[in-house]
Amino acid sequence: METITVKTSTNKYDVTIGAKLRFETSKFITKPYSSIFIITDSNVESLYLQDVLTSLQKDHEVNYTIVPAGESSKSVRVYFDVITQGLQYGLDRHGLIIALGGGMVGDLAGFVSSTFMRGIDYIQMPTTILAHDSSVGGKVAINHPEGKNLIGNFHPPQAVIYDVETLHTLTQTEIRSGYAEIAKHSLINPEPFWDNISSVNLKDALSEEVLMEHLLKGIAVKAAIVEQDERESNIRQYLNFGHTLGHALEAELGYGKITHGEAVGIGMLFAMRVSAYYYDNHNKLPYQELLTWLRANHYPFDLPRLQITKLVDRMKKDKKARNHNVQMVLLKDLGKPAIELIDDHNLAILLEKFLRELVGY
Amino acid sequence: METITVKTSTNKYDVTIGAKLRFETSKFITKPYSSIFIITDSNVESLYLQDVLTSLQKDHEVNYTIVPAGESSKSVRVYFDVITQGLQYGLDRHGLIIALGGGMVGDLAGFVSSTFMRGIDYIQMPTTILAHDSSVGGKVAINHPEGKNLIGNFHPPQAVIYDVETLHTLTQTEIRSGYAEIAKHSLINPEPFWDNISSVNLKDALSEEVLMEHLLKGIAVKAAIVEQDERESNIRQYLNFGHTLGHALEAELGYGKITHGEAVGIGMLFAMRVSAYYYDNHNKLPYQELLTWLRANHYPFDLPRLQITKLVDRMKKDKKARNHNVQMVLLKDLGKPAIELIDDHNLAILLEKFLRELVGY
Repeated sequence: METITVKTSTNKYDVTIGAKLRFETSKFITKPYSSIFIITDSNVESLYLQDVLTSLQKDHEVNYTIVPAGESSKSVRVYFDVITQGLQYGLDRHGLIIALGGGMVGDLAGFVSSTFMRGIDYIQMPTTILAHDSSVGGKVAINHPEGKNLIGNFHPPQAVIYDVETLHTLTQTEIRSGYAEIAKHSLINPEPFWDNISSVNLKDALSEEVLMEHLLKGIAVKAAIVEQDERESNIRQYLNFGHTLGHALEAELGYGKITHGEAVGIGMLFAMRVSAYYYDNHNKLPYQELLTWLRANHYPFDLPRLQITKLVDRMKKDKKARNHNVQMVLLKDLGKPAIELIDDHNLAILLEKFLRELVGY
Repeated sequence: METITVKTSTNKYDVTIGAKLRFETSKFITKPYSSIFIITDSNVESLYLQDVLTSLQKDHEVNYTIVPAGESSKSVRVYFDVITQGLQYGLDRHGLIIALGGGMVGDLAGFVSSTFMRGIDYIQMPTTILAHDSSVGGKVAINHPEGKNLIGNFHPPQAVIYDVETLHTLTQTEIRSGYAEIAKHSLINPEPFWDNISSVNLKDALSEEVLMEHLLKGIAVKAAIVEQDERESNIRQYLNFGHTLGHALEAELGYGKITHGEAVGIGMLFAMRVSAYYYDNHNKLPYQELLTWLRANHYPFDLPRLQITKLVDRMKKDKKARNHNVQMVLLKDLGKPAIELIDDHNLAILLEKFLRELVGY
């Protein structure tokens, strides 16, 4: 069991990582809450809900709600339904919410927590690799038809309880999606650990030891950045490396066609390409190594033909855009991210060339 | 023109009160916002929107949306529609929202601001007396069918611009509703100013001088409390004086049957009755004076017969209730509020007696 402490402007919380932690959930409840309300999804329910309930029910009044698995539950309708459920169970301002699941559940339950009776405590219990990223840092949100995470808040959790045993039930697709964010952390950290990641073969069963090492490293990167810039006015934007094109691809292909991490993988390649163009530093960046690793691990590159203007348009609508100019995180060197405003015209040319080479159309 | 500065944990903002301020709105915009999005309602639109637009349009890109007047616009549906409008106008993280209207508009627009792309700046431009209370302090919310303000946030504005000229178009009902909150502030303040209020006849045209004096005093009470306890973990609850029964009456009668302030007027009388019972201090409290003033100003007391158990039940469901026990703000003395847990049984007996005497059934 390992712990990383995250300090925020309003609280301090521990991220605890270890095997079988879900059986000890009650040990992490340190305040006298009036009741506990677990939010989970239809996939996680059958796997891990009972273990958490069993741990908590001795000492607490516990209720739960199950939302449909999948990104579509990050909607205003499901958000409202979950609040209604909470109210019907008598959840009040002195209650606790537990988010048991992947990034979708964490984002949705976190946003519910941040607005239920003007904000109550919540605990993140991530069950995916991808959620090592989203469960730390207090960003919570739901989607709007116009874009992902457009309705949300900053609301740090009281604790993150990360039972790595729950990662054994992930599919290859989910493992790929999560590892792209770990790769991102390995590339932007002032002490890069990309060599640790590039040597991993995701098709092999990953030992808990290796998983824990990578998750700890990834979370440490996230925690360090978030502590310095909780509200993303500055360096927190570095975490957006690979996400500008990534988000645009997800949206343009239609959510669910490729996973978030798979899109970020392609986005990171492109960000390195743009970096090489702007900084003339191609030889410093592991573009080829990342491409090789992504290919070896079956990240999908067989994209349908996409209109460059539409992708650029989506990038301009990104939350991070400034006055409709695309803002990208580039790498001046491995471990040295920087934020740059990118001219539309050059962006379109670079993107067309990049996609033609990568996808081969 | 008078100014009160409010310090919060995250910012500092000025509440500026004066005549014709709406014509100078642009003077209060101190940052280079990417665009401005005004949220107002169907009543205020025809009266004051153009004045604000004219002031802003010289220097800013300005868009607006108009929601139906009335409490029913504090719904999840209208909240979502307003966000959609904002997105369609290209509002981004560097934009500003202006809430132009009464408490409903302020609460709704404030909640939109607090969650739009995880929170953007907003300015309150209250146009009612009641909003002197809600526009200061950063509490924002929408309603849930289960109760008022159950979905919300703490999100302090960047400024409050209070043009007292806009108060001339208020109806008698709106004036009564607003003055009940001023009376509340006058009763709970360590330096009570109830004598200033009790001498006012609301049916007379109130001079801007008198209005400004009372609003300033009321806002000063609110500001002082909010600065000490922004998130209502302690003394901010004093502001709930008169609201425990008030909220229950509003809900039980059906929203809109009597106004918020009219309900709070009755609630304050009842809170004094309960205080007299608990502290045996009847002779210290201006119960009779408040009753006389409320009657003289035509606050409505002709309530239909209400079931005591239902009212008590509503009070137990209040956000401020603790473990389903009713928590009320009482007065130990004029200007000396205190929070007490009230036993259900006694509460029901006191309430029955109170309503029988007041309403006369």
